[in-house]
Amino acid sequence: MVIALKPGISPEDIDKFIIYIEKFGVKVDRSQVANQTVLGLVGDTTVINDDAIKANRYVEKVIRVQEPYKRVNRMFHPLDTVLDFKTGGNKASIGGGSFAVIAGPCSIESREQIVSVANDVKKAGAAFLRGGAFKPRTSPYAFQGMGCAGLDLLVEAKKETGLPIVTELMEFNQLELFEDVDIIQIGARNMQNFNLLKEIGRCRKPVLLKRGMSSTMTELLMAAEYIIAGGNDKIVLCERGIRGFDNFTRNILDIAIIPALKKKTHLPVIVDPSHATGLSWMVNAMSKAALAAGADGVMIEVHNDPEHALCDGEQSLTPDAFSSLMETLRKYAALEGKVM
Amino acid sequence: MVIALKPGISPEDIDKFIIYIEKFGVKVDRSQVANQTVLGLVGDTTVINDDAIKANRYVEKVIRVQEPYKRVNRMFHPLDTVLDFKTGGNKASIGGGSFAVIAGPCSIESREQIVSVANDVKKAGAAFLRGGAFKPRTSPYAFQGMGCAGLDLLVEAKKETGLPIVTELMEFNQLELFEDVDIIQIGARNMQNFNLLKEIGRCRKPVLLKRGMSSTMTELLMAAEYIIAGGNDKIVLCERGIRGFDNFTRNILDIAIIPALKKKTHLPVIVDPSHATGLSWMVNAMSKAALAAGADGVMIEVHNDPEHALCDGEQSLTPDAFSSLMETLRKYAALEGKVM
Amino acid sequence: MVIALKPGISPEDIDKFIIYIEKFGVKVDRSQVANQTVLGLVGDTTVINDDAIKANRYVEKVIRVQEPYKRVNRMFHPLDTVLDFKTGGNKASIGGGSFAVIAGPCSIESREQIVSVANDVKKAGAAFLRGGAFKPRTSPYAFQGMGCAGLDLLVEAKKETGLPIVTELMEFNQLELFEDVDIIQIGARNMQNFNLLKEIGRCRKPVLLKRGMSSTMTELLMAAEYIIAGGNDKIVLCERGIRGFDNFTRNILDIAIIPALKKKTHLPVIVDPSHATGLSWMVNAMSKAALAAGADGVMIEVHNDPEHALCDGEQSLTPDAFSSLMETLRKYAALEGKVM
Amino acid sequence: MVIALKPGISPEDIDKFIIYIEKFGVKVDRSQVANQTVLGLVGDTTVINDDAIKANRYVEKVIRVQEPYKRVNRMFHPLDTVLDFKTGGNKASIGGGSFAVIAGPCSIESREQIVSVANDVKKAGAAFLRGGAFKPRTSPYAFQGMGCAGLDLLVEAKKETGLPIVTELMEFNQLELFEDVDIIQIGARNMQNFNLLKEIGRCRKPVLLKRGMSSTMTELLMAAEYIIAGGNDKIVLCERGIRGFDNFTRNILDIAIIPALKKKTHLPVIVDPSHATGLSWMVNAMSKAALAAGADGVMIEVHNDPEHALCDGEQSLTPDAFSSLMETLRKYAALEGKVM
Repeated sequence: MVIALKPGISPEDIDKFIIYIEKFGVKVDRSQVANQTVLGLVGDTTVINDDAIKANRYVEKVIRVQEPYKRVNRMFHPLDTVLDFKTGGNKASIGGGSFAVIAGPCSIESREQIVSVANDVKKAGAAFLRGGAFKPRTSPYAFQGMGCAGLDLLVEAKKETGLPIVTELMEFNQLELFEDVDIIQIGARNMQNFNLLKEIGRCRKPVLLKRGMSSTMTELLMAAEYIIAGGNDKIVLCERGIRGFDNFTRNILDIAIIPALKKKTHLPVIVDPSHATGLSWMVNAMSKAALAAGADGVMIEVHNDPEHALCDGEQSLTPDAFSSLMETLRKYAALEGKVM
Repeated sequence: MVIALKPGISPEDIDKFIIYIEKFGVKVDRSQVANQTVLGLVGDTTVINDDAIKANRYVEKVIRVQEPYKRVNRMFHPLDTVLDFKTGGNKASIGGGSFAVIAGPCSIESREQIVSVANDVKKAGAAFLRGGAFKPRTSPYAFQGMGCAGLDLLVEAKKETGLPIVTELMEFNQLELFEDVDIIQIGARNMQNFNLLKEIGRCRKPVLLKRGMSSTMTELLMAAEYIIAGGNDKIVLCERGIRGFDNFTRNILDIAIIPALKKKTHLPVIVDPSHATGLSWMVNAMSKAALAAGADGVMIEVHNDPEHALCDGEQSLTPDAFSSLMETLRKYAALEGKVM
Repeated sequence: MVIALKPGISPEDIDKFIIYIEKFGVKVDRSQVANQTVLGLVGDTTVINDDAIKANRYVEKVIRVQEPYKRVNRMFHPLDTVLDFKTGGNKASIGGGSFAVIAGPCSIESREQIVSVANDVKKAGAAFLRGGAFKPRTSPYAFQGMGCAGLDLLVEAKKETGLPIVTELMEFNQLELFEDVDIIQIGARNMQNFNLLKEIGRCRKPVLLKRGMSSTMTELLMAAEYIIAGGNDKIVLCERGIRGFDNFTRNILDIAIIPALKKKTHLPVIVDPSHATGLSWMVNAMSKAALAAGADGVMIEVHNDPEHALCDGEQSLTPDAFSSLMETLRKYAALEGKVM
Repeated sequence: MVIALKPGISPEDIDKFIIYIEKFGVKVDRSQVANQTVLGLVGDTTVINDDAIKANRYVEKVIRVQEPYKRVNRMFHPLDTVLDFKTGGNKASIGGGSFAVIAGPCSIESREQIVSVANDVKKAGAAFLRGGAFKPRTSPYAFQGMGCAGLDLLVEAKKETGLPIVTELMEFNQLELFEDVDIIQIGARNMQNFNLLKEIGRCRKPVLLKRGMSSTMTELLMAAEYIIAGGNDKIVLCERGIRGFDNFTRNILDIAIIPALKKKTHLPVIVDPSHATGLSWMVNAMSKAALAAGADGVMIEVHNDPEHALCDGEQSLTPDAFSSLMETLRKYAALEGKVM
């Protein structure tokens, strides 16, 4: 941590300030930059509150040289985190050398629908089945998901196909219902629901953590740090589009966060092109781009009847379109040396 | 709702589409704009899922003429909502002709601190006391608030001063602890925690709902609609700054949302200049601007020792600075015909 | 300037790097922060190219402690810049203790229109007349302004009313036509048209420089630095709204940039609430807020017939509405001790 | 164009309003949506000023069903625009089935530098050479490019290698100097310099038009429409990153605009990953992603000595790194069936 003091502070005041800082257990190096004193803090500065320092009347700028996250930081854990799954004879991984495709409908709507889609995406080569039972919806009057009944149907589809399942958890009380769920999804709107993150940190289930609508990369990593600090290191990060000023897509797919995250953290990174763009005809191009940019997987909405979907039909692929996308992705994965 | 169809659709297909739409219980008027057919839907369209319509292969654009919110909509409830409080002989209001000042520290740190600040802000003329017991913090390693012990101290400060108290609730399980709390704050990061909103809708406590970091005005109103749909209409909306591309302030104070909200909804609207800017020296100018723009109040951080605050010291006023701000605000309130 | 080197660089390489840096004529102080070497550069660092330093393989972070602008910097020129105007017996100022109101139509449309509006706004108390002759329009098919003929009409209106006039210049070749213009406006889209800024720096006319749609405060000040570096220090800065993610207003009025600019620079700062919001019914609230936040003036669109305006009718006030706004602003100005 | 009137307007007023609208030469169809009258305008509505309509006291919403651009619109010109170049025996294309790589230094610094880089990028397979002679720089104190002397050196490099050259034009007066330049670049900051766009529309040189920092897709296409309306249809669009709220990259590469533009316009679309991210180590991943998303080419900064570059060193590749990137891109191009 580097602290630039305001110009014109007396040497005595600087001495007093240094003594105050040293109480945090760090050593302070002092240098002069033009007419300003600059202090370099040596030691563990994560206990120091930037805001309190900035509030000091002597201080002009506070700069953190080191990242505020530790356990998700690749600097301290250079090896890739890999999550392995075994369900009903199936094997699948996220991270390492594999490219994981998670597919399924936005909402579970009926047994027929989820089982049919599950069979379709399995046949096309998806490694995971997704489906929403509890749905966060902007309007209280919109369909809120089938709830527990939907969860049961998803588990049936898992049994039928052997695909591990991914579904969103909206509050911790639901956790006991998620016993047969393989990956708990934390949605973008809950990325900074810190109490939920702490509870998830205490469980041992793999977690798919979606980036918040306007969260920075550091905030996403700090959210993951909440989970890992609780003891759960089975985390997959997911870029799902950020808020922007244009509206030709629902959100902006921030493709550059993929290599940025791969550099900063050992956790796997996947992309959700369906939510990022909100447009099914873009999913193909965005999935290829995600793979090319280094993603460890994609999560894609597939619906057997998009026009009558109870939610997000506009962004869903038909099973046929998905199957054709998978063929393309396999060629790209081969180029990147990734297993699909 | 207006639906523009793609050019070149056969009359038979248009007829079929209209029959499909009419199943939702609305009447469909049809007109021709250049080479495109445009359908106007008459009746209650809130049950219709825009996404499903957009996913239809005939549809080019879907436009909602009417707002998606009802019970918070001023069109249906023209009169201002006013919240009245009586605590220990004190009377205070939010909404209507009053300008409400809520003041206090970001975090409750000790009995001495909260009682001292409470007395100071009361003396200066604040009508409400704020203080955080449960704190949402970006880092798991940062001070997370004193929790229940903090809440007890806040209630003591209420007893001592008679000021009604405002504090943040982070999950519904905490609600039983909030019996003596006068206004439950829902933080920006929980604005779309829909399960929490539903539960809050079931209780009868006044709620201060903060705008999410990148939420649109409509999303904020839809979040309030979740609460009011549950039966709780004691809602205060709070602008607290949105995410922007510059960093000379922590967030962008979106001053224009004040008159926009006052036009669209009957709910009172206050502003939090401390969090919006993150800079104590801006609070004065921003508070005056908020009042001038039509806000029903402000929420201001006051700390007896900002340099040693455990959180957000940089944005806190000293009691003296707050007292001087209150004098200024009284003059502005007089100009606007508002009671302080 | 502070340069943090990557961890693990050999002492010899650090020595070599310091020698390289010292060639720029600065002195280098060296300290150790944890396992990283941090260098503090003493002297004039404005000649050093941050990008080149960042590209160096030893460098992790480069931090500028001092602002990159000099001549617009209040640190070096503490006194407010004040622009005084005398036209046809009238006196007017921008900056210092006055609150300047610039009013008039978006586009000049006819002699009758501009003279009529000029008389109306003068009567209501405006100190300056604005009107567009050359109009930047998003569409090549939209009305592009009356051009030279419009300029002539604006000068006529100046003669008739004695009001100094403000109008936009879109390219330097037009400058000779602007002899009778009192303030040259540089539009938001030209804020980083650096060649234009250089030429404007060479002339001696007052300039009203509008903030670019997504420009940071520093970029705005650097654009002003281009002009002042050329020798022209008669600059007024104008906040006119920045691009955001919501659409209830055309742009986001960034009210906090007013106190921020007043702190950083000695140049006067005005606000254009008409363009910022695009909504005439918001101009009242936003003008008051601008004054309350410390602005030195506002620029307001007034049209005698907004419904038939050839451009931006939706955001124009009628002369009556403007007159009533002026009465309100006079009360606010009195409160702030400003002359109107 | 669809106009929704406010509720409660008398039939007589609606009739009068329709007569007013019909004066623009369009036919008006009328329907009733709930309690609101909705008008559909049939005919050429590009002459109608949305703002004037919105300013009308009867009007609630104005919706354009059709795009405001015509000549760049793929709907009216379905076939891809392809630009062909022949220089010194070389042949190159942009658009159609080719993937064009434009490479070279940000700034031309010396004969040795530009010729050396030109030879390097040609050897690696680049089809075009780029180099800046006139540089738009945020600071007036930064290196502004070599100007005419730089242009001469770029032309020398063209003669030596036979590569067609691309360089930025900052004002129209420079055009006569650009005789030997093959593609004129219009920078992001000049995307809405409408006078410049009109002049460029009058010349017959190919133009590379960069997207403005915060321009929408429609604004980019309207800027291109300015050029094509002047008669110049040799336009290449370039995505170069937009402004965002995070800073792990300089800008946000908006990858989804590639398929969106390919759908809306017949013009070729390329990507500048160097400026978009500002980080050389990201160029590889972003170039592959651009190709995978459907781009017609990329523009990449290559410098023989990035650490001593006079501008943007941090984002430049070395010739070796560029050569290795080209090998990778050839494999991706093959997969997409594109010629490199």
